[in-house]
Amino acid sequence: MGLLSTEKTDWPPIDLGDGIVFGPDKTVMMAGPCAVESRDQIFQAAEFIAGLGIRVFRAGAFKPRTSPYSFQGLDHEGLALLAEVRERFGLKIITEAKDMTHAEAVAEVADIVQVGAKSMYNHALLKFCGRLDKPVLLKRFFAATLKEFLQMADFILLEGNRRLLLCERGIRTFEPQTRFSLDLSGAAVLQEQSRLPLVLDPSHAIGYRFGVPRLARACAAFGAEGLLIEVHPNVEQAQCDRDQALDHATFARLFAELREICALQGRELV
Amino acid sequence: MGLLSTEKTDWPPIDLGDGIVFGPDKTVMMAGPCAVESRDQIFQAAEFIAGLGIRVFRAGAFKPRTSPYSFQGLDHEGLALLAEVRERFGLKIITEAKDMTHAEAVAEVADIVQVGAKSMYNHALLKFCGRLDKPVLLKRFFAATLKEFLQMADFILLEGNRRLLLCERGIRTFEPQTRFSLDLSGAAVLQEQSRLPLVLDPSHAIGYRFGVPRLARACAAFGAEGLLIEVHPNVEQAQCDRDQALDHATFARLFAELREICALQGRELV
Amino acid sequence: MGLLSTEKTDWPPIDLGDGIVFGPDKTVMMAGPCAVESRDQIFQAAEFIAGLGIRVFRAGAFKPRTSPYSFQGLDHEGLALLAEVRERFGLKIITEAKDMTHAEAVAEVADIVQVGAKSMYNHALLKFCGRLDKPVLLKRFFAATLKEFLQMADFILLEGNRRLLLCERGIRTFEPQTRFSLDLSGAAVLQEQSRLPLVLDPSHAIGYRFGVPRLARACAAFGAEGLLIEVHPNVEQAQCDRDQALDHATFARLFAELREICALQGRELV
Amino acid sequence: MGLLSTEKTDWPPIDLGDGIVFGPDKTVMMAGPCAVESRDQIFQAAEFIAGLGIRVFRAGAFKPRTSPYSFQGLDHEGLALLAEVRERFGLKIITEAKDMTHAEAVAEVADIVQVGAKSMYNHALLKFCGRLDKPVLLKRFFAATLKEFLQMADFILLEGNRRLLLCERGIRTFEPQTRFSLDLSGAAVLQEQSRLPLVLDPSHAIGYRFGVPRLARACAAFGAEGLLIEVHPNVEQAQCDRDQALDHATFARLFAELREICALQGRELV
Repeated sequence: MGLLSTEKTDWPPIDLGDGIVFGPDKTVMMAGPCAVESRDQIFQAAEFIAGLGIRVFRAGAFKPRTSPYSFQGLDHEGLALLAEVRERFGLKIITEAKDMTHAEAVAEVADIVQVGAKSMYNHALLKFCGRLDKPVLLKRFFAATLKEFLQMADFILLEGNRRLLLCERGIRTFEPQTRFSLDLSGAAVLQEQSRLPLVLDPSHAIGYRFGVPRLARACAAFGAEGLLIEVHPNVEQAQCDRDQALDHATFARLFAELREICALQGRELV
Repeated sequence: MGLLSTEKTDWPPIDLGDGIVFGPDKTVMMAGPCAVESRDQIFQAAEFIAGLGIRVFRAGAFKPRTSPYSFQGLDHEGLALLAEVRERFGLKIITEAKDMTHAEAVAEVADIVQVGAKSMYNHALLKFCGRLDKPVLLKRFFAATLKEFLQMADFILLEGNRRLLLCERGIRTFEPQTRFSLDLSGAAVLQEQSRLPLVLDPSHAIGYRFGVPRLARACAAFGAEGLLIEVHPNVEQAQCDRDQALDHATFARLFAELREICALQGRELV
Repeated sequence: MGLLSTEKTDWPPIDLGDGIVFGPDKTVMMAGPCAVESRDQIFQAAEFIAGLGIRVFRAGAFKPRTSPYSFQGLDHEGLALLAEVRERFGLKIITEAKDMTHAEAVAEVADIVQVGAKSMYNHALLKFCGRLDKPVLLKRFFAATLKEFLQMADFILLEGNRRLLLCERGIRTFEPQTRFSLDLSGAAVLQEQSRLPLVLDPSHAIGYRFGVPRLARACAAFGAEGLLIEVHPNVEQAQCDRDQALDHATFARLFAELREICALQGRELV
Repeated sequence: MGLLSTEKTDWPPIDLGDGIVFGPDKTVMMAGPCAVESRDQIFQAAEFIAGLGIRVFRAGAFKPRTSPYSFQGLDHEGLALLAEVRERFGLKIITEAKDMTHAEAVAEVADIVQVGAKSMYNHALLKFCGRLDKPVLLKRFFAATLKEFLQMADFILLEGNRRLLLCERGIRTFEPQTRFSLDLSGAAVLQEQSRLPLVLDPSHAIGYRFGVPRLARACAAFGAEGLLIEVHPNVEQAQCDRDQALDHATFARLFAELREICALQGRELV
């Protein structure tokens, strides 16, 4: 296709320090709740994640909700809490920028700036990310073809930032009993066409927690440079994507299983 | 659903003056090229459209292209040309705002601000449009459910602007030989659930000009408050969506046919 | 593609006699209930259809139901009732053969043998139809690409029967509020690629009666050689596809509108 | 849903003898070429499969091809070769019945009768399978909802045969670079709703061999009672689904990896 994102040359390593590398022999676990809801909730979540030895914490302050009547995120207050988490627990932070009105603020706190699926076509945001000096995770829109996904990735790469992670998080299908379907067939094509590191998100890819452990194990065996999983200290009270977050006990068991599966592929899960 | 967009109360008429009303007995034709490409091209296009007695001119200055290697639009220069078109030909202008970096500028020139399909989830842009004192046309994202579409419409309505047009422009399907499929089945549900005026876009809904006249006739007979059709003075040299623009002669014939079909439904096509 | 179904030579006219021709200046209306349910119901339906001057009656005896717990059709008894309808009301009959266990019996009664969407890949049935000396209507499976549809059509044509009608009846999409979406964009491609007559089915293409008149009008303006519409003498008690059948009064009004729209296209609706 | 297929009672074990059980602690590998092409080809394939210690051999004699111009299978001659394979190599045979014209013959040779995706709605075939005294594998149609799949399963179960395997083999999506997408999200719902054994088919689920090992590993870690994988002695000359068959060396390596992954889940891969 002649896209930058499909060039077969070496890409700069995406190395967050302290051995956290998205690379050929390491898979990075990024876990945490969907949204920052309160100081208590986010500190409880971070303490648990850090306690498992996981190094990258995910949580959203600016939430791309589809309904104006749902919880909309804590915005800048949420971002400030993430900065505290980073300080206090030594965790790296991945969090989402939805649009240009707050992108600068997000980039100041985040170790990895996430561009969510619904913003995948936002030129201004992509170009902004392309000028950052930090890694960016771009999620595939749930109805984007792989070609479109790689083309939009080029909007970032062309600005100079080459530390880009591509994330498959499920596509929309005709099936009403799943929220999305994890497109591993498409992910295999991505891995064939691009050398950019691949991250898989099994939580959004089904939308219901009963299926997340199975899908997460599939992702680990499939082989990816990163995993993004939602876990919440109190799943019954989660204010965002409540049905898909794992509880702490389930996640802890799953994490142990995933390490074993990654090890079989010659990968350390960090 | 309890959404504002589905309330069965009366909505303010969307009346652009001079008899241009999106309403129960009038359908508004909005026609023009995909993009502003040059002064010559846009003046030639506008002269043709005005000559047919059509009152609303469409053309994009800020283009939401999927490839960074395609023509990206003339941006502010294109907007200035649209302002000239408006002055010189007395045409009303509908043009797209992609994101917040230029939304203010677009709103100054446009008579109707268009939010394109790829920006349908952009909260900041929707809220900006909700505070405008002019009509807004919101396009359904090509993989948005009708519920999502109406929810995102509420982000605009909740800010106070009730002059909102809903536009169906084709959904993505498994069929590789069409770019999109015009979802008239979905449009029928929209008309059942919402009293907001409906606009149909047969040009994007197939992507190839050979099918546009048939689809446009179907849209007119289906019944809609507005039609959005692409036409270009020199289709072979169009720099954007070249395959779907109609040439002038074909469009002129089609426009006459559409007036007759609208008349059968008790609608004047203006 | 090198398919028989896409050859640009002349095809034999599909002429059922008495001026019923699927051709360039005539569109054939095929109407009736989804299923034969009882002698009373089917006679009442046929009397109404014949009374409107419509010449082709549709109703299924062998129903391709998705649930084994739904009404399954009257099978051979239903077929016998259709033979009576034909005799008594002088109507031509279009009815479906699901598989080889009853194809012979269906072919004896039907004036047009319908192969339903769910049987589109049934080689044995297609080849059987290809050896018949009567017209066949092949419905596009709701997830078949146009190429697959035309390829399966060739299984019929290659056996020698060239009197084949292609029917678009809606495709499956991600939208939960419609049963299917009428793929007029795809139908436009079909008309570009194949000279076989096209039939459109607006009833199955949405699944809910509130949208059928709008879709039917769109189909008439789009231009097709045939229309297939469900109408039932007692919609509340229909045992099959209850939600999509039109009542008699609505259908009669619609039929008059469709004649006018067809007339605008230079077509007589018979 | 009140379906037999979703009953939470115990189902009869699907035990082919010699320790081949689709059950909670065993996963059955079913491997072989897409089609029986010749005595040489099928014997070479069977010898390789048997040599790896695999016990169930897959190959089709009656092929549900979409194009009449492709290789159509050896039909009864292919079936006779499968009977020879069974005798000579002691392999169990899984092979497909497309329709009633040959279902009886297939049932005489097969140890597991496969109903392919394109025949999932064939009532006559399903009912025939429901009266057999041998296991049946029902593939989900590539655009069937899970509810439809389970409903069609009931057409078999209601006739009395409870030895039924459900197979997910990929769904059709908007992505042109994959043939299908393995719907593991849907498969997770199936496992939640039904206790019938689940079989996954990673070969059809992408259609290109480069992705099959990754997908197969994902399937093994996901957890399934059976795997169905295509492998061919001479991939360049395969006459059916050529692009997706693995060569012998790749398959042998993959099989070893899959055993390890299954072992992690407490499952023996037989």
